[in-house]
Amino acid sequence: MRIAIDAMGGDHAPKDIVEGALAAAREWNEIEVVLVGNAAEIEKYMTDKPANLTVRHTEEIIEADDEPVKAVRRKKDSSMVVAGRMVREKEADAMISAGNTGALMTTGLLVIGRIPGIERPALAPMIPTVNGNGLLALDLGANMDATAEQLSQYAVMGSVYRNKVHGIDRPRVGLLNVGTEAMKGNELTKAAYPLMEQAPIHFIGNVESRDALRADCDVLVCDGFAGNIMLKSLEGAASVFFSVLKTEFTRTWYSKLAAAILKPGILKFRKKFDYTEHGAAPLLGVQGLVLKCHGSSDANAIKNAVRQAKIALQNNLVSAISTEIQSREVRETI
Amino acid sequence: MRIAIDAMGGDHAPKDIVEGALAAAREWNEIEVVLVGNAAEIEKYMTDKPANLTVRHTEEIIEADDEPVKAVRRKKDSSMVVAGRMVREKEADAMISAGNTGALMTTGLLVIGRIPGIERPALAPMIPTVNGNGLLALDLGANMDATAEQLSQYAVMGSVYRNKVHGIDRPRVGLLNVGTEAMKGNELTKAAYPLMEQAPIHFIGNVESRDALRADCDVLVCDGFAGNIMLKSLEGAASVFFSVLKTEFTRTWYSKLAAAILKPGILKFRKKFDYTEHGAAPLLGVQGLVLKCHGSSDANAIKNAVRQAKIALQNNLVSAISTEIQSREVRETI
Repeated sequence: MRIAIDAMGGDHAPKDIVEGALAAAREWNEIEVVLVGNAAEIEKYMTDKPANLTVRHTEEIIEADDEPVKAVRRKKDSSMVVAGRMVREKEADAMISAGNTGALMTTGLLVIGRIPGIERPALAPMIPTVNGNGLLALDLGANMDATAEQLSQYAVMGSVYRNKVHGIDRPRVGLLNVGTEAMKGNELTKAAYPLMEQAPIHFIGNVESRDALRADCDVLVCDGFAGNIMLKSLEGAASVFFSVLKTEFTRTWYSKLAAAILKPGILKFRKKFDYTEHGAAPLLGVQGLVLKCHGSSDANAIKNAVRQAKIALQNNLVSAISTEIQSREVRETI
Repeated sequence: MRIAIDAMGGDHAPKDIVEGALAAAREWNEIEVVLVGNAAEIEKYMTDKPANLTVRHTEEIIEADDEPVKAVRRKKDSSMVVAGRMVREKEADAMISAGNTGALMTTGLLVIGRIPGIERPALAPMIPTVNGNGLLALDLGANMDATAEQLSQYAVMGSVYRNKVHGIDRPRVGLLNVGTEAMKGNELTKAAYPLMEQAPIHFIGNVESRDALRADCDVLVCDGFAGNIMLKSLEGAASVFFSVLKTEFTRTWYSKLAAAILKPGILKFRKKFDYTEHGAAPLLGVQGLVLKCHGSSDANAIKNAVRQAKIALQNNLVSAISTEIQSREVRETI
């Protein structure tokens, strides 16, 4: 299997991307890594050159603040678009990027293309939970608005992903909502609920955002707007909380002493809830595997994303999603 | 001014409601308090009877788990519906209830009625913020879905409330969104943005949920669904943090010692972010003043709600909202 890595995207590109790719190539002989980007820049950080790692030179770079659609359309020789083209033309089985999120979703949609039957691809990051298992939330980025049918497709894709990549037997799928009863919610969630009941998933009903961090579910379905409001509220609360703790901890000499005792436990907790630590987010619903790493990814995060891609490829994630979606369509037309 | 208080609604009714009403009647001679509910039950807690406090006997009670619309339609002699009818018939200038939220909103809509020109009344609680000022968020309850025009009416009502009740000169009004740029968001917020720019308010643009707790705004506008997702995410995060802190604080004997030193500061912080402490939420857009107290309100919370009603009445909140909405309509038809 061949994995194309966008060497030019992310806060620490190309250094950390190259180092992560090198580490992955060294560890797993069965994969071929293709680093896509400026060859001269990449070579700077190539301490050695494993046989299963090649470089594909490109001239252009999509920057973090580029307008996504425009950038993908115009910068045809950018590292991200070239990696996408490799996936479309079956030169690569997967692509990984820590670059501009909007541009990567556009690359997925316009360069690689959707799986037939999928209305909208969805970005699906893992959200840390109290029990440490985390939940896959989708859509979190690709589309602000969604229809009920699209939410039910997200549910199927998320369920297949958790099964194929995380080995969960019957992933529990919840619908993000404002109450647990079936009739709660806005027009969208009320229409999505019966569709999710009929979908080939283990639907556990509505999940309140209040319970997301303690949720007993593996997949949380939401439109991009609501999901984003939830995720950023959790982030905002965490940021306020830790800054207040810091103030309390440094107030007096004896509070500093007390803080020193409690610090390790608090730091462990903080790390557990740092969502940048929870792997790459797949862009589900496109005709190939696309993984989005956090912009701040270091070499280790890149290496972990390669591992994630390897597992997804070994378990034929993309064709499993395709089969599930098409069998649903067949059932619906019968 | 006369204020009707639903004596039978809330976790601590009628005891705490009666005690709070008594305290308010004693403190402010200029108001008349009418306790609406079961006279025999109310009398039990009447330690004295100030001249400006009367009891209006009712037989029925709307329970916390009653279906709102059905309850309001059928229980015409319930304490809540009777208090609403007193407002409609100008027997009272305001009503206060700690009972079933959905039923109170239905009472506002069906018994009291909307201000002409207002499409939907909105429930507007205060959300605690880091700087201690808090922000008024609306709608948080009455309607899950909203149109852009309704959001812009929420903005006007929230702005008038902050001005009349909290004395803020030019309340800063933000739109809850997933990014700060004007073109960010879903179809709803993108359509609402230009309307809010034209509204007679001090519109400061989009506010991300991540920044709500630190927000430099006085009013935060959202549809009921998104607002609920935000508020419950903040609550959920807070609940997880404090339970983890508790675990860390009680892990060993020396962590218990350390915790004892830090506890007062942490408790102060927790209290600051307890949204039950931040007063009653007005139901804005109905033809009279309606205040919703938290279900767990104690006597002090009820007394504070009376104070809040007093200020709103003294500053003619309802007619100010009516004037602002109608002058907008006039401008639009010119």
